Amino acid sequence: MAVTMEQLVSLAKHRGFIFPGSEIYGGLANTWDYGPLGVLLKNNVKRAWWRKFIQESPYNVGLDTAILMNREVWVASGHVGNFNDPMTDCRVCKARHRADKLIEDVLFERGEERIVDGLSFSEMEALMKEMNVQCPQCGAHDFTPIRQFNMMFKTHAGVTEDATNEVYLRPETAQGIFVNFKNVQRTMRKKLPFGIGQVGKSFRNEITPGNFTFRTREFEQMEVEFFCEPGTDEEWFSYWRQFCADFVQSLGLRDEFVRLRDHEVEQLSHYSKATTDVEYRFPFGWGELLGIANRTDYDLRQHSKHAHTDFTVSEEGKEPYIPFCIEPSIGADRLTLAFFADAYEEQSLPDGDSRTVLHFHPALAPYTAAVFPLSKKLAEGANEIYRMLAADFSVDYDDSGSIGKRYRRHDEIGTPFCVTYDFQSEDDHAVTVRDRDSMEQVRIPVTELKQYFFEKTAF
Amino acid sequence: MAVTMEQLVSLAKHRGFIFPGSEIYGGLANTWDYGPLGVLLKNNVKRAWWRKFIQESPYNVGLDTAILMNREVWVASGHVGNFNDPMTDCRVCKARHRADKLIEDVLFERGEERIVDGLSFSEMEALMKEMNVQCPQCGAHDFTPIRQFNMMFKTHAGVTEDATNEVYLRPETAQGIFVNFKNVQRTMRKKLPFGIGQVGKSFRNEITPGNFTFRTREFEQMEVEFFCEPGTDEEWFSYWRQFCADFVQSLGLRDEFVRLRDHEVEQLSHYSKATTDVEYRFPFGWGELLGIANRTDYDLRQHSKHAHTDFTVSEEGKEPYIPFCIEPSIGADRLTLAFFADAYEEQSLPDGDSRTVLHFHPALAPYTAAVFPLSKKLAEGANEIYRMLAADFSVDYDDSGSIGKRYRRHDEIGTPFCVTYDFQSEDDHAVTVRDRDSMEQVRIPVTELKQYFFEKTAF
Repeated sequence: MAVTMEQLVSLAKHRGFIFPGSEIYGGLANTWDYGPLGVLLKNNVKRAWWRKFIQESPYNVGLDTAILMNREVWVASGHVGNFNDPMTDCRVCKARHRADKLIEDVLFERGEERIVDGLSFSEMEALMKEMNVQCPQCGAHDFTPIRQFNMMFKTHAGVTEDATNEVYLRPETAQGIFVNFKNVQRTMRKKLPFGIGQVGKSFRNEITPGNFTFRTREFEQMEVEFFCEPGTDEEWFSYWRQFCADFVQSLGLRDEFVRLRDHEVEQLSHYSKATTDVEYRFPFGWGELLGIANRTDYDLRQHSKHAHTDFTVSEEGKEPYIPFCIEPSIGADRLTLAFFADAYEEQSLPDGDSRTVLHFHPALAPYTAAVFPLSKKLAEGANEIYRMLAADFSVDYDDSGSIGKRYRRHDEIGTPFCVTYDFQSEDDHAVTVRDRDSMEQVRIPVTELKQYFFEKTAF
Repeated sequence: MAVTMEQLVSLAKHRGFIFPGSEIYGGLANTWDYGPLGVLLKNNVKRAWWRKFIQESPYNVGLDTAILMNREVWVASGHVGNFNDPMTDCRVCKARHRADKLIEDVLFERGEERIVDGLSFSEMEALMKEMNVQCPQCGAHDFTPIRQFNMMFKTHAGVTEDATNEVYLRPETAQGIFVNFKNVQRTMRKKLPFGIGQVGKSFRNEITPGNFTFRTREFEQMEVEFFCEPGTDEEWFSYWRQFCADFVQSLGLRDEFVRLRDHEVEQLSHYSKATTDVEYRFPFGWGELLGIANRTDYDLRQHSKHAHTDFTVSEEGKEPYIPFCIEPSIGADRLTLAFFADAYEEQSLPDGDSRTVLHFHPALAPYTAAVFPLSKKLAEGANEIYRMLAADFSVDYDDSGSIGKRYRRHDEIGTPFCVTYDFQSEDDHAVTVRDRDSMEQVRIPVTELKQYFFEKTAF
């Protein structure tokens, strides 16, 4: 049986992964808070990304730019003019909708997969009539004409609320990288090709956020902007396309639930020469986890014009050029949700029993291990093991209920290893390590325990 | 010679630590972007905090709540009503100022240290007259009466800009913890005393941000809310006060530049029973790095009332009670700035030469090590060392210029260890490791290199 969204949301809430935001005040439309286990899982996802995309990359360096940026950045990038969703209202119940999503939802129900990106407003209106689209709220068929809605959050920095103080919450982290291209290149003495990556929150005032943490107004991105010489861009596009596919695969997403979707020419954004989405088969359907885009020299050229800054690169024996940019952009919340969904299993056991188990890759699991004293009398020795492991791993200490109950509790939150300190441990200085997936047990000397977990969490 | 702010800002900018935000567009009032080395330094500060305050703590668990919260949270917490700065305008040049800061700056210049917190508006106005305070912009002495200015950033979530959609950017991460108290306690089956901590961005619309990254409108906090039984609160307050002092000391801040300042009763916030600030002697004067506050049961009681939620804890054999809360709250940007300032030295060397060196604790330094091939012919072997280290540490590979130049370059960015791969390395499978501070060199077998760095980065 495939996992449902209801099962995921329920487990997330009851086991400390994800709570509805501001819950005691009735929530705030589709905001979510990561609980004690959720933050460990998401931090592991972000650390894995940082390690693979920045730390181990011979090409890339990191960055961490401000959420609040000068308004002109968003004029130059095109977000002030073009970052709009097609909005339509139901004339009967006044509910507000994204026209493209209304159409896609009907297509999805019919089992058709078709992407509506790239259609004009009048084409979408015609399609809505033709398909007899209903208001999901009240069932009516009477919609206002589609109009543009800019998705950037606006606020005011400074002490007066006038237009000169208007700033936006960034809708993507990418522009923080573009405007720092020269700062980074100069200070790090980088030669092309090289990339700059960062992890951080972005904000989009989505008309219809939804599907748990998949589409939220506040979300976290992990983006690299990789700069290269024009003419080598297609090669580098392939490189990062493969790199991203390998990345999600190395952390254990099931192959059959992952697909790469190359955009058709008519779907491409105005700045993009090629785009591939990596999609995951969520319980609600296929959804984009990440995208690799060939942004050409669009962004640097725009900033060049608007900021009167020269981004031309001059290399010996070559014509000066403005670098092209390949962007692997990953949604941290979406990727975390995919790992969560992918890990879920309700498993019937040979003995007739059953268990809920989250099969996280050990590098992603909230706790690497849980330490159990077999009896409360063994607290001192077990605690010592716990403290030793806690310097390098996130671990839990659990002394309540039978060992069997403790196994089930940790299966349900995805702890890959349960370490039992028993009466023999005091003599042989060894512990029993039980594997979450195989449920097999091995005896391991305490002095080798850390090394054992270092090897198991490698990826 | 003590370091100046000008030296810090300049090194930060030219060596890739911190750039002015949106710089190519003329900046945006006091926003800053962390460059490739700055993000490594700040990430190390945040990881050290997480390890000590969450991972190794037998009491605390982590959390990561949304920046956008239901407006009622801020009504209950008192921020809508009370989170105001005393604002005054210069009548001559129209510049806007914080009255308390104007007074404190004059006192600081006179060498007097006095805190203005807790004075009423009319007391501040009287003091400004008495001290003959000038407008820092134009020199005039003519100010408007002081009035309140609410420091929360406002925006609108959803597709209409009306009052019902008004939301604030959180001014502190703490409230995200309070509203989740029950979710965390229940799902993690926690008994008191226990704490909940998180790291994240907060936003305050400061009238006069300044002093580099010390006071900015967008900043990052590392906060723990520690819940305990009333009556034990003073003991826990002392525990966390000491814990925080030990934490900054263990990462190498000079003792003589750190002081603990216990607030006088009249300085305390309305919700606080006791507060201690840990201050650092920045080049611009003493500044708060972190605070430990006894918030009593104020916050849970307020949310209890406003959200009609019962936060009472019932324990066997005890009267039910609402937990008291001790809050160690650290500014991540400020602490990073303190480590940066503290590390800086312009050093005269015995041979008459001089160098700029950043004496970061090895656990905080952006790069743990830099790998140098002695000659470009040795690239292959040196690269192998680099890749081996990069799986566990942030490391740089540097093959340009003489070894002496490479040492100076890495002294200036605080790399504690420089690893030279020379012609002998191919035979003896060992490398020369040069220490940043002592400038001494040791020969270390390649197989022991990782362990050497693990030990050196322990804290």
